[in-house]
Amino acid sequence: MTSDPPRVRRHLARLSGYAPVVPLAERARIAGLEPEDCLKLDANENPYGMHPRVREALAQALSDPGFGSIYPDPNQASLRQALSRYTGLDPSMILAGAGADELLDLALRALLPPGGAVVTCSPGFGMYPFLADINELRLIDVPRDERFMLRDDMLLRAAETSGRDAVVVLTSPNNPSGDMIPRELLLALLNRGATVMLDEAYIEFAGMDASAKDLLTEFPRLIVMRTFSKWAGIAGLRLGYALANPNLVTDLIKVKQPYNVNQAAEIAGIAAIDNAAEIGAQIDTIRDTRDQLFEALRNVEGLTPLPSRANFILIRVDPNVGTGRELHDRLAAVGVFTRTYSDPLLTSYLRISVPRADQLDTLIQRIGAVL
Amino acid sequence: MTSDPPRVRRHLARLSGYAPVVPLAERARIAGLEPEDCLKLDANENPYGMHPRVREALAQALSDPGFGSIYPDPNQASLRQALSRYTGLDPSMILAGAGADELLDLALRALLPPGGAVVTCSPGFGMYPFLADINELRLIDVPRDERFMLRDDMLLRAAETSGRDAVVVLTSPNNPSGDMIPRELLLALLNRGATVMLDEAYIEFAGMDASAKDLLTEFPRLIVMRTFSKWAGIAGLRLGYALANPNLVTDLIKVKQPYNVNQAAEIAGIAAIDNAAEIGAQIDTIRDTRDQLFEALRNVEGLTPLPSRANFILIRVDPNVGTGRELHDRLAAVGVFTRTYSDPLLTSYLRISVPRADQLDTLIQRIGAVL
Repeated sequence: MTSDPPRVRRHLARLSGYAPVVPLAERARIAGLEPEDCLKLDANENPYGMHPRVREALAQALSDPGFGSIYPDPNQASLRQALSRYTGLDPSMILAGAGADELLDLALRALLPPGGAVVTCSPGFGMYPFLADINELRLIDVPRDERFMLRDDMLLRAAETSGRDAVVVLTSPNNPSGDMIPRELLLALLNRGATVMLDEAYIEFAGMDASAKDLLTEFPRLIVMRTFSKWAGIAGLRLGYALANPNLVTDLIKVKQPYNVNQAAEIAGIAAIDNAAEIGAQIDTIRDTRDQLFEALRNVEGLTPLPSRANFILIRVDPNVGTGRELHDRLAAVGVFTRTYSDPLLTSYLRISVPRADQLDTLIQRIGAVL
Repeated sequence: MTSDPPRVRRHLARLSGYAPVVPLAERARIAGLEPEDCLKLDANENPYGMHPRVREALAQALSDPGFGSIYPDPNQASLRQALSRYTGLDPSMILAGAGADELLDLALRALLPPGGAVVTCSPGFGMYPFLADINELRLIDVPRDERFMLRDDMLLRAAETSGRDAVVVLTSPNNPSGDMIPRELLLALLNRGATVMLDEAYIEFAGMDASAKDLLTEFPRLIVMRTFSKWAGIAGLRLGYALANPNLVTDLIKVKQPYNVNQAAEIAGIAAIDNAAEIGAQIDTIRDTRDQLFEALRNVEGLTPLPSRANFILIRVDPNVGTGRELHDRLAAVGVFTRTYSDPLLTSYLRISVPRADQLDTLIQRIGAVL
């Protein structure tokens, strides 16, 4: 008789796991503060929260006795129809998921055999190496240079030499550096036949005309990933979507969990699309606040903010001030929660999400107080 | 330049996909009826829907400006604490997921390499062969006999000869036959060192003392899967959980999607647990209705209901009446939506979920009308 618990597969047993954000209540408790006195600027969420119109739609849905008890539509017909209005693409090119996270995993899992390659450019979203590990894939990293510039030639070469079973994963605007993937680079990759998964989680903050979705028809090997977690303020409900070639969407629908998008996310997502103009005003404010924060940080001695097209700013911390981690800890002690990284390239950096406009002065004051 | 869309892996390309339930609105439209005139008895949902107390908890949460916009807690601390109260087990033995579906997939994916084996006994839940396909596993089926009795010796032999990389997946009460997995059989499997995933999706309708969870401490290779979709009436919000050895839970937490349980599901789940006594009264009614339906069906010529411990009844259809599929179609035309199967063993059967008590007469009448 075997009395040991069952073991997970070897490549999983050695995982350290994805380092997720620590919940606000816990961070506030550690700081000895009330959550409402803290600025949660560590996960790039919408600081205004869910829009009142989205909230109303959920309240309305909740008053229906049928709400929540029936399985969601596996074909996501209403949601994909709404996403079609939002993106201008046919529903056959759209697939929704429980956050973009689920779809990133689904696509890698479905497209790449064990030993296949994820080609990416660090520093980037921590989910990509995590998903490479989970799916037993090789991570081929073409790191950005010390100014976070992409090394185009090296990336193109890596994409070409990584074989058929490879997916290039890029983020635009990039997390955490905030810059866009240049269109010429994207075209160069696609023209060479690379499969490119372009994560546009923050595209709303760059402006929708910065999206690469117009390339989808010409380049069937392009997959664009999007999320409602950032712009629409519903990170807690889990909703993302993929834009891709219809054949690939058809295949992925067969492979996904049938009931992958929960009903609250479906309703909130449709309401966010129906009220995209109102939420757009919020996004404009966030962009203004971002630019004000950028200017304010430029005037803080010892800090150098990087220009950003997203809803966060990566800040270089002067060695006189300390490491990124040290500044992060000092800010945490006064209730400002930011994000640091283990990547050696980012030792001197911290990332800060854009706060509400009315929180900007407090943020600047608290930063000043700990320097 | 490659202009073809990227292809999913070979073992996925040939999938027919899981056959999910067709949404009510669509079934009603096909029948030419209003949804409220139909009886949706095809997916074993709670016919009373979400309990008012759970609805209140969601409404309350929704009034909090912070609702929905922040990522959920990856460690599921509050939810696992609540599940600990509900199950009597330590939180370290509990892991929540987006429905039991996610956890079934997660466990198979984490434990078994490609070519590993899922040992199961058809007829059963369609998700198991689907997940075996997705994970490139062999499905070793030890079919029940024509009276749906388990073939114990064959199952034990299959479990023994299927190698180290095998998981036995059983459902108790079984879907669709409604009977329990005998405890002696479970013990025989566990005593031989088999890893057993016991799906207790319907256990609340059998009575919690029928659960095998008391075996978890003694047998670290037992994994019990549960769901909130059936008893708690929140199938649309996606919530399930696994009960397992703490070491396995720790490993699975590292492998799962960090934000796998959405906030609405978390709140509804905790509220369902806090109001388990009130929902329990609903469950008692469903059990009574099930037993009344069983008696009523026994008196219908041409139909033979099977005894059930769950919230559905499998019905044998006499050849004079037609096949299960034919009766299913005739019932659908009068707005009674049931479930049939492609499994040859089930050609003469259909499964019907237990309706609300006030719907029972209508159901019996409509059945009578189409026979």
